[in-house]
Amino acid sequence: MELRGPIVLADNRYGKAENRIVRIYRDDARHEIRDLNVSTELRGDFADAYVEGDQRKVLPTDSQKQTAYAYAKRPGAQPVEDYALALAAHFVDEIEPVRRARVEVDEYAWQRVTVGKLEHDHTWVRSGPEIRTVTVTVDGAGVDQRAWVIGGVKDLVILKSTGSEFADFLVDDFTVLEPTRDRMLATALHARWRFAGTTGLDWDEIHTGIRASMLEVFATHHSKALQQTLFEMGKAALEAYPVLAEIRLTAPNKHHFAYDLKRFGIENHGEVFHADDRPYGLIHATVARADAPSAGPAWDD
Amino acid sequence: MELRGPIVLADNRYGKAENRIVRIYRDDARHEIRDLNVSTELRGDFADAYVEGDQRKVLPTDSQKQTAYAYAKRPGAQPVEDYALALAAHFVDEIEPVRRARVEVDEYAWQRVTVGKLEHDHTWVRSGPEIRTVTVTVDGAGVDQRAWVIGGVKDLVILKSTGSEFADFLVDDFTVLEPTRDRMLATALHARWRFAGTTGLDWDEIHTGIRASMLEVFATHHSKALQQTLFEMGKAALEAYPVLAEIRLTAPNKHHFAYDLKRFGIENHGEVFHADDRPYGLIHATVARADAPSAGPAWDD
Amino acid sequence: MELRGPIVLADNRYGKAENRIVRIYRDDARHEIRDLNVSTELRGDFADAYVEGDQRKVLPTDSQKQTAYAYAKRPGAQPVEDYALALAAHFVDEIEPVRRARVEVDEYAWQRVTVGKLEHDHTWVRSGPEIRTVTVTVDGAGVDQRAWVIGGVKDLVILKSTGSEFADFLVDDFTVLEPTRDRMLATALHARWRFAGTTGLDWDEIHTGIRASMLEVFATHHSKALQQTLFEMGKAALEAYPVLAEIRLTAPNKHHFAYDLKRFGIENHGEVFHADDRPYGLIHATVARADAPSAGPAWDD
Amino acid sequence: MELRGPIVLADNRYGKAENRIVRIYRDDARHEIRDLNVSTELRGDFADAYVEGDQRKVLPTDSQKQTAYAYAKRPGAQPVEDYALALAAHFVDEIEPVRRARVEVDEYAWQRVTVGKLEHDHTWVRSGPEIRTVTVTVDGAGVDQRAWVIGGVKDLVILKSTGSEFADFLVDDFTVLEPTRDRMLATALHARWRFAGTTGLDWDEIHTGIRASMLEVFATHHSKALQQTLFEMGKAALEAYPVLAEIRLTAPNKHHFAYDLKRFGIENHGEVFHADDRPYGLIHATVARADAPSAGPAWDD
Repeated sequence: MELRGPIVLADNRYGKAENRIVRIYRDDARHEIRDLNVSTELRGDFADAYVEGDQRKVLPTDSQKQTAYAYAKRPGAQPVEDYALALAAHFVDEIEPVRRARVEVDEYAWQRVTVGKLEHDHTWVRSGPEIRTVTVTVDGAGVDQRAWVIGGVKDLVILKSTGSEFADFLVDDFTVLEPTRDRMLATALHARWRFAGTTGLDWDEIHTGIRASMLEVFATHHSKALQQTLFEMGKAALEAYPVLAEIRLTAPNKHHFAYDLKRFGIENHGEVFHADDRPYGLIHATVARADAPSAGPAWDD
Repeated sequence: MELRGPIVLADNRYGKAENRIVRIYRDDARHEIRDLNVSTELRGDFADAYVEGDQRKVLPTDSQKQTAYAYAKRPGAQPVEDYALALAAHFVDEIEPVRRARVEVDEYAWQRVTVGKLEHDHTWVRSGPEIRTVTVTVDGAGVDQRAWVIGGVKDLVILKSTGSEFADFLVDDFTVLEPTRDRMLATALHARWRFAGTTGLDWDEIHTGIRASMLEVFATHHSKALQQTLFEMGKAALEAYPVLAEIRLTAPNKHHFAYDLKRFGIENHGEVFHADDRPYGLIHATVARADAPSAGPAWDD
Repeated sequence: MELRGPIVLADNRYGKAENRIVRIYRDDARHEIRDLNVSTELRGDFADAYVEGDQRKVLPTDSQKQTAYAYAKRPGAQPVEDYALALAAHFVDEIEPVRRARVEVDEYAWQRVTVGKLEHDHTWVRSGPEIRTVTVTVDGAGVDQRAWVIGGVKDLVILKSTGSEFADFLVDDFTVLEPTRDRMLATALHARWRFAGTTGLDWDEIHTGIRASMLEVFATHHSKALQQTLFEMGKAALEAYPVLAEIRLTAPNKHHFAYDLKRFGIENHGEVFHADDRPYGLIHATVARADAPSAGPAWDD
Repeated sequence: MELRGPIVLADNRYGKAENRIVRIYRDDARHEIRDLNVSTELRGDFADAYVEGDQRKVLPTDSQKQTAYAYAKRPGAQPVEDYALALAAHFVDEIEPVRRARVEVDEYAWQRVTVGKLEHDHTWVRSGPEIRTVTVTVDGAGVDQRAWVIGGVKDLVILKSTGSEFADFLVDDFTVLEPTRDRMLATALHARWRFAGTTGLDWDEIHTGIRASMLEVFATHHSKALQQTLFEMGKAALEAYPVLAEIRLTAPNKHHFAYDLKRFGIENHGEVFHADDRPYGLIHATVARADAPSAGPAWDD
């Protein structure tokens, strides 16, 4: 099949990725820290830069960087969602060719060092590998302006050593897997939840609450498959927070294979496992409220 | 805003990711190698597994793995596009609940070791970091079955030490960047191209040709911005191969800053650079034929 | 300079690296987890394998792997130091050509999920990026057998937002750095401590205590340079635990540069920083007891 | 065992790691590129900085960075070995408290883009993953000054699909491995070679020659074990270049397991493999000239 139509610029966007901004609040002796990786991305009237090499409407990515750092001072970086909303709105409102702005933030968590039994004022230890994520999209000008906030978490590595099975599955000519009624279940959860609104929300409290809801279900729900567990985790988050429109969960099934020690005369009742790297099952689920408002471009790349 | 509608499973898919398959062809003394990372993903009638914990329609991800390895023997792993098409069609055709299958392949390149001046028969050195990518989607049954192939390359790291400028850009209150008429330009190109057809194509030859077209433009085109360079690279690929419907390019602007040696009484005329890690500009462009057939689900996650 | 002497095998060792062993203790409803990455390495009478291709004295690395998994059941994987000592002694005692065995373990930390306010019996969240390390060396047979234990931590990422300065340093022709009396100090600490003994120690308690000693000093000690801070941290660990012979600290100075916002009319009093990736200062210190017993081969590769 | 002796600073060193320096030679239309990651490390009279917090003898790591960039202009970055020797000597000769300097360089390889059949003047594609390494140590002042150069390569990923066996090995109670007379052999070679001299050598030519010698042996030598192959590779390098005092080789045995397709009625005669990630065998060998001069501190950390 040969195409003969004209060749066109069908889509474009650009920005500055991975600005590593650390914001310290030091208004009194007890400092606060927000440790961020901020990416900006703009859509708008930029075709001439691509097609003609004409930069007159292009705000340099360096200028986007400067703005991201400046906004970390004022309005400031906490809560992160409000920072991202302000930064995205700035680009749409102040830079004429911009039609839509996306701000993505990864936030790294720190715990205060304890000295004696007291939390220290200005010293922290990184905790993780878990990363909190925020994706804000602001589209359009004036009264037509719309905004979307997606919160989330990635690299939330969780494991349960019992309370999980996988059996009664479809069998084809290539199926050699044995069913099991007691296995280890582990994943590195990537979950993203879309909010139905963007104002009047206690972002930090909601983040903590969603995370706790999901972890509680992961711990207490007897799993017939990772698919079921993900659905129940997403459902619990939506039930706990009616401001959530939907939640998207992606979860590698980090396989832990019971190690065959029988060959050496040693019993292994779910005690010694090999944690395998690759391949891994990869399960996706989107759980939503039936009356969720439109996602618009919130999930676009 | 509080939502009160029922909570539903809005979307789902699952599969086995990152099967590290190496296929050797050893029919004669001169062996051939294809080194692959294969991921499979199925969509279909799987809601019961999520909502009810009922696995009866779920083909285990382990079975998908076995099939991916078996298909590397027959029909075999070269060209990779035909392997992926066959594997995806297998799932749709043979596994009843499957409606759509996606097969993604990363291929790692190897060069034959030379001994004397001769290429060795069965010994190779990995070349890279460049990775060839294939994404195949097969959807539907019988006469309604459709297939899409997306080829590509990622981590193609390229650099030109002159022939690039960036000037005459938009200036706002946060703009401190100085315009330049001669800079270093470097990126780690990620390009993916969608084919208008899936049969009768010499996949390996086309891959080599698209890569060469893009590299030639990168080298010879005087760049007024990375945006322009990407558009011209995509355009050249589409012009060279009318079977291409569109190409999507993502390119980090890997900044190389001329190092300030003037402080030490040393002139630096584009000779000594600091290669910075983060942040980086990130430029996206989609270049398409106006008469391209529908992408359908080809680009879906 | 041309050398004409005979070419000889001057040194050799081999083993199995990165056995990803997870050990669950499930004797009652409250499970325990030890998540390990275990590497074994043997020295001994193996020259024939290298020089002649004669494997008769070579214990396959696969056999070493099987043993590492088997020993995770009995004697078991906790404390990790005793597991490593037993595994290393096994190779020296039971495999005739082995003269010395090294066992290295990285241990990944998990925290119990809390449900309500209670810790869950069998569900955990990975904490990190901090990794606990153990290196055990067992050398020789019978009454001449000696053993060494090195404990440690790596990727312990710590930061203080004040209480650090760097000034009054040496100035040469290439010095442009400005002195500062208040800066951010951050590192990813890698510390390893050698024990004077190998028995009668509460390994887990000591690990926790050393870590706490170092963190307390990092928090409370006013730093005139990272060098000084490291020395004080090491000294505190040795003072707290007289069983320690020495401690080796390696610490990248993870630079956080105060961002220049003055250009935009914004004051920045240590509030907005750019966390830079590379380059970074890299500081090493070894702090030791003057009466420490010989390290023997404990620190050898 | 409790130690009561005084606590002392037993060792120290510090420097600036991972300066990402790119040097372009543009004296005529055909540019040349050297892409480097440079780390400096100093030893000397620095104890006061650790013990007293006194920086008066400390050359800031920032000053080391400036020097590394300045030296990339003059004397320049090629050959890399001479650059490293000059930079290390500078610190020892010009900075009073410095007794010994170490400069480590990783060099990334680039290939010229071909346009038509011609190599382009100023455009390259990164090749790899292979990295060339240089470690230079300069110790002492004046007539007592000594220097050592270690060259090397890391991440040289090589594979042979036949011509390798592993059999007739030692068998213990944990041995379940089956002997094989035809297997795949793959590794990511890390090799470092110490030169007997530091002057009058064509560093680039020797690097290319050593690499070719090793690859030729890897390809043509029938391997009875990776141990033997490494020894023969090292021996070939030393035979080809009498200026080499010794070579140290470290090689993970990147296991490729023949995939069991018999279960599906499919024969697999060394055609379909699973490339496993972990664990992996890890083999070390040092091959040396019996009349090699002293290594001094060349191999120290």
